[in-house]
Amino acid sequence: MAQRLIDRDTSGVYIISATPFTENGAVDEASTDRLVDFYLDSGVNGMTILGIMGEANKLTAEESRGFASRVLKRIDGRIPVIVGASAAGIDNLKSFSRFAMDEGAAGIMVAPTPGPAVEDRIIGYFRQVCEALGPDVPICFQDFPLTTGVPVSVATILTLTREMPQIVMLKHEDWPGLSKISAVRAGSGTAETPRISILCGNGGLFLPQELSRGADGAMTGFAYPEMLVQVVEAHRAGDPDRAEDIYDAYLPILRYEQQPGFGLAVRKEILRRRGAIACARTRAPGPRLNDTDQAELTRLMERTDRKVKGL
Amino acid sequence: MAQRLIDRDTSGVYIISATPFTENGAVDEASTDRLVDFYLDSGVNGMTILGIMGEANKLTAEESRGFASRVLKRIDGRIPVIVGASAAGIDNLKSFSRFAMDEGAAGIMVAPTPGPAVEDRIIGYFRQVCEALGPDVPICFQDFPLTTGVPVSVATILTLTREMPQIVMLKHEDWPGLSKISAVRAGSGTAETPRISILCGNGGLFLPQELSRGADGAMTGFAYPEMLVQVVEAHRAGDPDRAEDIYDAYLPILRYEQQPGFGLAVRKEILRRRGAIACARTRAPGPRLNDTDQAELTRLMERTDRKVKGL
Amino acid sequence: MAQRLIDRDTSGVYIISATPFTENGAVDEASTDRLVDFYLDSGVNGMTILGIMGEANKLTAEESRGFASRVLKRIDGRIPVIVGASAAGIDNLKSFSRFAMDEGAAGIMVAPTPGPAVEDRIIGYFRQVCEALGPDVPICFQDFPLTTGVPVSVATILTLTREMPQIVMLKHEDWPGLSKISAVRAGSGTAETPRISILCGNGGLFLPQELSRGADGAMTGFAYPEMLVQVVEAHRAGDPDRAEDIYDAYLPILRYEQQPGFGLAVRKEILRRRGAIACARTRAPGPRLNDTDQAELTRLMERTDRKVKGL
Amino acid sequence: MAQRLIDRDTSGVYIISATPFTENGAVDEASTDRLVDFYLDSGVNGMTILGIMGEANKLTAEESRGFASRVLKRIDGRIPVIVGASAAGIDNLKSFSRFAMDEGAAGIMVAPTPGPAVEDRIIGYFRQVCEALGPDVPICFQDFPLTTGVPVSVATILTLTREMPQIVMLKHEDWPGLSKISAVRAGSGTAETPRISILCGNGGLFLPQELSRGADGAMTGFAYPEMLVQVVEAHRAGDPDRAEDIYDAYLPILRYEQQPGFGLAVRKEILRRRGAIACARTRAPGPRLNDTDQAELTRLMERTDRKVKGL
Repeated sequence: MAQRLIDRDTSGVYIISATPFTENGAVDEASTDRLVDFYLDSGVNGMTILGIMGEANKLTAEESRGFASRVLKRIDGRIPVIVGASAAGIDNLKSFSRFAMDEGAAGIMVAPTPGPAVEDRIIGYFRQVCEALGPDVPICFQDFPLTTGVPVSVATILTLTREMPQIVMLKHEDWPGLSKISAVRAGSGTAETPRISILCGNGGLFLPQELSRGADGAMTGFAYPEMLVQVVEAHRAGDPDRAEDIYDAYLPILRYEQQPGFGLAVRKEILRRRGAIACARTRAPGPRLNDTDQAELTRLMERTDRKVKGL
Repeated sequence: MAQRLIDRDTSGVYIISATPFTENGAVDEASTDRLVDFYLDSGVNGMTILGIMGEANKLTAEESRGFASRVLKRIDGRIPVIVGASAAGIDNLKSFSRFAMDEGAAGIMVAPTPGPAVEDRIIGYFRQVCEALGPDVPICFQDFPLTTGVPVSVATILTLTREMPQIVMLKHEDWPGLSKISAVRAGSGTAETPRISILCGNGGLFLPQELSRGADGAMTGFAYPEMLVQVVEAHRAGDPDRAEDIYDAYLPILRYEQQPGFGLAVRKEILRRRGAIACARTRAPGPRLNDTDQAELTRLMERTDRKVKGL
Repeated sequence: MAQRLIDRDTSGVYIISATPFTENGAVDEASTDRLVDFYLDSGVNGMTILGIMGEANKLTAEESRGFASRVLKRIDGRIPVIVGASAAGIDNLKSFSRFAMDEGAAGIMVAPTPGPAVEDRIIGYFRQVCEALGPDVPICFQDFPLTTGVPVSVATILTLTREMPQIVMLKHEDWPGLSKISAVRAGSGTAETPRISILCGNGGLFLPQELSRGADGAMTGFAYPEMLVQVVEAHRAGDPDRAEDIYDAYLPILRYEQQPGFGLAVRKEILRRRGAIACARTRAPGPRLNDTDQAELTRLMERTDRKVKGL
Repeated sequence: MAQRLIDRDTSGVYIISATPFTENGAVDEASTDRLVDFYLDSGVNGMTILGIMGEANKLTAEESRGFASRVLKRIDGRIPVIVGASAAGIDNLKSFSRFAMDEGAAGIMVAPTPGPAVEDRIIGYFRQVCEALGPDVPICFQDFPLTTGVPVSVATILTLTREMPQIVMLKHEDWPGLSKISAVRAGSGTAETPRISILCGNGGLFLPQELSRGADGAMTGFAYPEMLVQVVEAHRAGDPDRAEDIYDAYLPILRYEQQPGFGLAVRKEILRRRGAIACARTRAPGPRLNDTDQAELTRLMERTDRKVKGL
């Protein structure tokens, strides 16, 4: 079977996968399989692994390869998998990307390297990345200034789209960023600039609005992926009110999970409670929930359950 | 009548006031009065003017004084008014604060000046501020790292509370910041450190959780101040579920209004539509809503109205 | 006499003026006159007042106007004076700029406002500025990312130069920034893009290299302005070795004065010791020299004097 | 022979080693040996490898281990070697540090992880680091806010010194930072707080002043290490004027090499021209010198040679 690759029309929900660890801090292989099954059961259209929320920067190179291999093997081609490969050096980025593509990845996600947010630097960097990966590897451009410290203009995104055919997808998580989605959508798919797929991150905090503005779906790691799927499907089915009703039922816990840094501990704990992983541990130095946090979360999960039942 | 001052037990909703402008950019005096009435009608317990959301840094010194005077005169002692006085230089801060206190303000809000986030610099700065203002002027410490670029530890807040008797209130808007509220609440009101009043900002994004963790109320500018009042009251009345039900009905539009920078344009447009001000203009360079934004907002306001009716 | 304005060919040394205060913190008018005379005696070609090093943000609007008037009156047209007018709001920027131009300023210096470093925001802002000032007011674009937090690409600078005829000068103080000077010099003065005058800041830390790369001079506040004048003149006279010999004699103290923030206290103390101002005070919160710093400075000044005598 | 470890009295010049690459980007083993010999010949007292200037973040884990082993074997105990081990995760930091210590390192250099600059976070992190490394591994605390984005107060440094016996050295490169050296020197070696060794970085830009304020030496990578050695020795010999005369002769090229980011390309090119490495390449994305830069450097090196001969 030909390897499925992401392209300019890719749409739906690409769930950002957590990386599960055991209590003693090793990558938890059994939970990896279980988490993949959990995501597949929720109906997501694709998966993204080893992003920021996957604690990629705390894994060794061997662990990253092992995790990518295991996930790709478990999925076995059922849905496409994008692999995060941001690295300080192009050489590391290249060798890991090649490995991931050989194992069956559908594309590579890359963010700008830290440094001055000037267009020629960003574009020059992506030229180097494209050349290193070779033209056959599709790239998802990750636009996440709150974390990278590198704001990127709509004009730069359109230039990347136009000049580098393999940059086929934007992971949008600028904030505030709704007008950016409208502008990228309007400026791509024109005579001059090819279409670019737009999947939105930011924990899903504006998903209904993003879909209405032309986003193709979500790429985030919300621990209730079935909501993301239902919202995107309802929206596609032409029922934005239904989409937003579903969404609103989950919004209190979604906004709780979307706290920078700390939210990862919340997300993993919800996944644990839902049976998707065995242990909620993040790698040190990483956030942990204390008793107050746990009780607060319990309350929010219970309220969410009640609301979802009432839908 | 003695001037009412904020103190270590101040609680409730202190609404952050917008500053209304006319279409040609002047401070709109008629709308100022109308807006004050709107806030008073909503039942808020206090008001804060000339903060970041009040575009204080775009007013001339004369405009700031004129606005403060007009608001204080209109309120006429019915509720306490905190006046934002953050300025690059202590001399400007001092002269404006004196003016505001003479006009009847209940306290002064000050944020750390930009610079390295080291404790001795922050504490040294507040020593200078306290000395400049004199011991009779109560201070609200504004902790808003996303905007100031100066993160402040719990230990520093407690040191300020302990060593400077006139620092009586914390405007909390660190993010994520829930555990900080718990820690400040636990660490103040002890044998060593006096109590400090904690009012929470951040657009109200975590208000129910903040109240449960011991915050004394809200200090934010959400354009539906009646919700803030109802939530705080329900919480005080021992009905956190009711508080959270009310809160959740507004959350979709609250999170829409809480977009950094852009959210101010949303807030002013809601205030305009609700009849509180005549014109939603922000001073240049400032955000504006385009047609797509307006339609998105209309939709969110209508959905909010329906949900609130269903409460 | 017609008012002298800066233009695309302006060159030489534009000294950044300090703002002298008395011991009790008031603007020191007598020292203002003395300082102007000191700068004129040193042979500078122009002056820039109310920049960052002029503590402009710690003055009231009245003080800024008073200082600008006094300086312009004292200079009485002998050299052109650029006035810094960066402000959070366009309205304040506009009214102060008009005042300064009416008093005889040669141009206005403006830096990008804080915010995401994306080209469309920066260019949009300068369009607003140009419109507010009107086409007759020449603008010096201040490129100082270390302080503004807004890096600006060469392409953006050239776009500003091309599209806004009144932006005639670049105050260059990006760091590292030598290649930027080469690129702006090569990209302006072409068929497409008019020439732009480039004066370099950064305390003069790379002045010889900057001149060799095509800069038109210096715009900085080094407390030995005669060195800047001699270096620029020797360079113009075709003797870069002589220029660099002079420069190197002052480099140890120049690099000492170029410490961000703290350097202003050093600069004012040198100016005081040289008789240019009566008091080295900076406005609070501002840096001060302690005894160790004073002794260190004494040593560096003495070493500088010996080296300069040996030239 | 017992392994030599850094301690609270360590002093002298610890040269920060570059990591040499071949034209095709591999670690250059022959140049590694040659560079070690070059440093040893210059008379340095110790070496620091795999710091920021060693492009550590662009090496794979295997390359880092290989480079550390090779350097340590070549040095063979003649001078102590500190190994940089900053990593996003504690687990990676721990395993690499253990490897380095087993190979004969004299200590480990660790910088705070990115995040809010609050004392409890920084101290908490170093507690985790100390526990992970075990009490027998001496730590050099790297204080480099310009790169890490984490300013650290004197009080925090003294707390680390007091509470964690294995933190024995401060690599000082705050900027401006002279008063910090005085304060750390005064606050350590007291009844309460043990002494801490202070070696200064920042390219050596203030070395004479730093030594006068009580620093124990330099830890930087200036491509003329013999200067650092001579300056420290002259200073120790009680001849600060001689120290500063030597220093000043190199200052023009030192300040040229000290450009953030770009300076690494300058440094490697000087090392190449001086015969210490075969190729000046930095790993992508990294800085490169163009023809103008090369000519500028040639001129500065020639001027330096002439001055040094004249000493």
